[in-house]
Amino acid sequence: MGAGRRIVVVGGMACGPKAAARARRCDPHACITIVEQGNTVSEGSCGLPYYVGGQVTSDKELLIRTPRYFKDVSNMDVLTGTRATVIDRGAHELEVVDAATGTTSRLPYDKLVLATGATPFIPPGLKGKDLKGVFTLTKIADAHAILSEIKDAVPRRAVVVGAGLIGMEAAEAFKARGLEVSVVEALERVLPTLLDLEMSLHVEKELSRQGVKLFLEQCMLRLEGDDKEHVRRVVTNKETLEADIVLLALGYRPNVELALDAALSLGVTGAIAVNEHMQTSDPDIYAGGDCVENTHRVTGQQILAPMGSTANKHGRIIGTNITGGDETFPGVLATTIVKVFDLNIARVGLTEKEAIGAGFRPVIALAPGHDRASYYPGAQMMIVKLVTDSSTGRVLGGQVLGKGDVARRADVLVTTISLNGTADDMANLDLAYSPPFSGAMDVLHNAANVGRNKIAGQARGISPTEVHDLIRKGEDFVLLDVRSQQEWDEMHIDARQSRLVPLNRLREEVSLLPRDACIVTMCGTSIRAYQAQRMLEGEGFKNVCFMDGSIVAWPYAVVCGMKQ
Amino acid sequence: MGAGRRIVVVGGMACGPKAAARARRCDPHACITIVEQGNTVSEGSCGLPYYVGGQVTSDKELLIRTPRYFKDVSNMDVLTGTRATVIDRGAHELEVVDAATGTTSRLPYDKLVLATGATPFIPPGLKGKDLKGVFTLTKIADAHAILSEIKDAVPRRAVVVGAGLIGMEAAEAFKARGLEVSVVEALERVLPTLLDLEMSLHVEKELSRQGVKLFLEQCMLRLEGDDKEHVRRVVTNKETLEADIVLLALGYRPNVELALDAALSLGVTGAIAVNEHMQTSDPDIYAGGDCVENTHRVTGQQILAPMGSTANKHGRIIGTNITGGDETFPGVLATTIVKVFDLNIARVGLTEKEAIGAGFRPVIALAPGHDRASYYPGAQMMIVKLVTDSSTGRVLGGQVLGKGDVARRADVLVTTISLNGTADDMANLDLAYSPPFSGAMDVLHNAANVGRNKIAGQARGISPTEVHDLIRKGEDFVLLDVRSQQEWDEMHIDARQSRLVPLNRLREEVSLLPRDACIVTMCGTSIRAYQAQRMLEGEGFKNVCFMDGSIVAWPYAVVCGMKQ
Repeated sequence: MGAGRRIVVVGGMACGPKAAARARRCDPHACITIVEQGNTVSEGSCGLPYYVGGQVTSDKELLIRTPRYFKDVSNMDVLTGTRATVIDRGAHELEVVDAATGTTSRLPYDKLVLATGATPFIPPGLKGKDLKGVFTLTKIADAHAILSEIKDAVPRRAVVVGAGLIGMEAAEAFKARGLEVSVVEALERVLPTLLDLEMSLHVEKELSRQGVKLFLEQCMLRLEGDDKEHVRRVVTNKETLEADIVLLALGYRPNVELALDAALSLGVTGAIAVNEHMQTSDPDIYAGGDCVENTHRVTGQQILAPMGSTANKHGRIIGTNITGGDETFPGVLATTIVKVFDLNIARVGLTEKEAIGAGFRPVIALAPGHDRASYYPGAQMMIVKLVTDSSTGRVLGGQVLGKGDVARRADVLVTTISLNGTADDMANLDLAYSPPFSGAMDVLHNAANVGRNKIAGQARGISPTEVHDLIRKGEDFVLLDVRSQQEWDEMHIDARQSRLVPLNRLREEVSLLPRDACIVTMCGTSIRAYQAQRMLEGEGFKNVCFMDGSIVAWPYAVVCGMKQ
Repeated sequence: MGAGRRIVVVGGMACGPKAAARARRCDPHACITIVEQGNTVSEGSCGLPYYVGGQVTSDKELLIRTPRYFKDVSNMDVLTGTRATVIDRGAHELEVVDAATGTTSRLPYDKLVLATGATPFIPPGLKGKDLKGVFTLTKIADAHAILSEIKDAVPRRAVVVGAGLIGMEAAEAFKARGLEVSVVEALERVLPTLLDLEMSLHVEKELSRQGVKLFLEQCMLRLEGDDKEHVRRVVTNKETLEADIVLLALGYRPNVELALDAALSLGVTGAIAVNEHMQTSDPDIYAGGDCVENTHRVTGQQILAPMGSTANKHGRIIGTNITGGDETFPGVLATTIVKVFDLNIARVGLTEKEAIGAGFRPVIALAPGHDRASYYPGAQMMIVKLVTDSSTGRVLGGQVLGKGDVARRADVLVTTISLNGTADDMANLDLAYSPPFSGAMDVLHNAANVGRNKIAGQARGISPTEVHDLIRKGEDFVLLDVRSQQEWDEMHIDARQSRLVPLNRLREEVSLLPRDACIVTMCGTSIRAYQAQRMLEGEGFKNVCFMDGSIVAWPYAVVCGMKQ
């Protein structure tokens, strides 16, 4: 064994163990050591919100591997409770300190792997951050502390600070534990960096339905405690929220100190820079997981995308490359999926806003549809927002939201975008069809066809947020609802501009419509609204468009009748 | 209107109405007529098994559109009860007969669309096919007749002839109605043209668990009735089955008589030949849906692939092209998904057998895995069989089977194959990850990596069917199960060659293994088995491979202990 290449891995959570295990499978004779500052390895940290919420009942399920397992199965040493302090690049040695004894030692390496992860961000100088009852959630120990607090202190009011992924998952977890939940977010909407505005608004509706209170556009100023040093209030720039337990979910910062001290290059995001081989600026040092930045496959830009899935892919590639192989990582699509109570929400590639920011001229399709045949029991409505480049037809991104099989549509988008597919490609994908699984035309086919119709100049859409603005400003236009009287009675948009002419009567009543007005057609999902647009254009109307996604995608208030 | 182009569509089910509706949206002034021999249009025929089974409670849900709707909304005429009899290509006229009055008339066309569908195959001269209680299932009227029979005649024993898609769905529907169900199939296994052998065997296990009796490798010879001309027996070449109701599910034959009489070209499959514009050999006649053949996107060969989803895509393309547009259809992947009781089963692209038949040298990965994080409530085990071209790494096909989200993995395979993706591409797809939706490494990532490891020569697999053969023949080899004692006690393969050495003891017990023997490692999902293969090779063993998919993918008998 002594003759084998020496591999030292810093970090025992996701990327590190994966790199080590892959290295072992590629090279049975390498001498491999994992250094981990904590006392456990391979925590399934993505599952923590579900352990806090009670869906996952034992922390053992989140402890995927033990140090003993790595020794017995993969013949590698795992040094827990050991902190890496200095990389001596010249000597090819890593200095480590045993936390228990304070003993320093040096581990020689041929290849070093940095998988140092990320740390929850806490605003520097935040007052009250050390009060009892204030938590972050990235380790099993955090979850234990939160559960102890819930059990022992019996908190009534939880405040989650930050409406990103962890914030949303934590809100659901606290609700599942019977707490009153408030969410504070500095930006004007939830999941603000994940979704476009109209999609965020649907999530807010769901949170509101579930009884979660939102405090948007509010900056946390400080946390205040009682005389027992226990948190009792979250003070923002606008109000003071009572709180018995506080979760800080303000994102992550990559752990780069070790790399920085060793003068390894950092990237524009502040994370460790790596090439496509996952190699740092020192060719004998590789890095992966949450401590590195990733290339966005659509824009080519460097982004932070800390995900357990990406960390595992990094790990495998590193394990290959440090044992003489040659594999490259193509980058990420910033793919994200999150369950927020009954809604499944996914984002792939660029949002509309990001696409515009990146210099594209995106065409938007907002296509609601069922996740399986509409007549099949349990069919759920979803909304797909597809972002396509108007000049090339290339799919740039997508957002999917609903109660049904959102993940499936997200993954088709991931695959399409990764392989440079266009809306034309998507429209003719031979996707799996049978009534228990989808409609004959899947919602993705419809979304692609809406995009194609728009690019071809046949379909003219206007977004629900624009229509909402027009209504709010009192603009003159006709919001022509072409659904049936019954559908109107069940639910409609209450506006001066609203007018019902069912599609099957539109042809005969066309003479009653003002020819000089702007007409915005709408229906349930925008399929009939598009038909109405084409019909009116056929009748010589010049200023007609349809409301993207129509009433299903309308995220604002509606008037509901008896049937609702 | 008289000045518009004249479009006549034959067939009012899926492709025809879609072509007509798309044509209307592209050309508001076209004069469009749909001719349909039945009395209804736009039946959701794929939903019929679920209407028979009772999951869909009203036939109204399967009647998607009425002739009136087409008139009112799309301003087109639908002539129901009208049979197209002759295409006069020279005169550009279609002769039709009104079924009620027998009146013949001629419809002039500029563009003609044939969407004549397919008819259930019944062996010519089959004795007893006209007995009461003998059905096929392609129309709502068929479902009504079956439900009347179930209600009025109270059958006890159903025999389904044919173990393809409709046969499987019908078996489930009859079971749901409380009948004893037998399935007769001429080939040696169920879903024989859809799946490879080991995957079919899993479906057979499920059918058996649900109490469906299988009669494989049996040819139906005749049906026998009682003195009231009601079916009572299905006679095969091997036995006689008692039957009170019989469903013939022997596939479809495209309806090509009209095209044939007009001397339009048929293809190698016997269906109407069309080019990528969906144009027949007459440039003014287009055809789509179940009456045409499709190009397989992997092999380039012409195949029959009658699917409602494909018919809809054909229809849209035809509607575009007959109104002056230019769109092409890229072909199909023979994608199929079917629910068989609790199993979801999908096939995309080529099976292993088909890939070999098409001249590829496929590499197989058989990867079991959970559909979401293994610790997340409701996680279900699935099996992915991935077929990759060994020389290019291109993904050729896949089969997915299990209780969980099979459709998602199928659709990622569809997208990958359609865009010429490789196993390398698949392994690094940034698929949507969060514990409620998938593992950090999705089962597709694992399948792709197994394929890559095999192509790289690192992983050596042997299929479960081969291992089963070796055991059956009494060959000398070691079937080295590296799971834990507890897992072994719960379930193991009972064979002389079986031997348990848990992976964490393998390194120390390696000296006890015969160095000259062939060793086949196995575990739960083959992940540990592959580790064991690499470990033993590292120890100098020369003849080691792992069993693909291991015990989860093992479709044969196992010994179960107390825990099962």
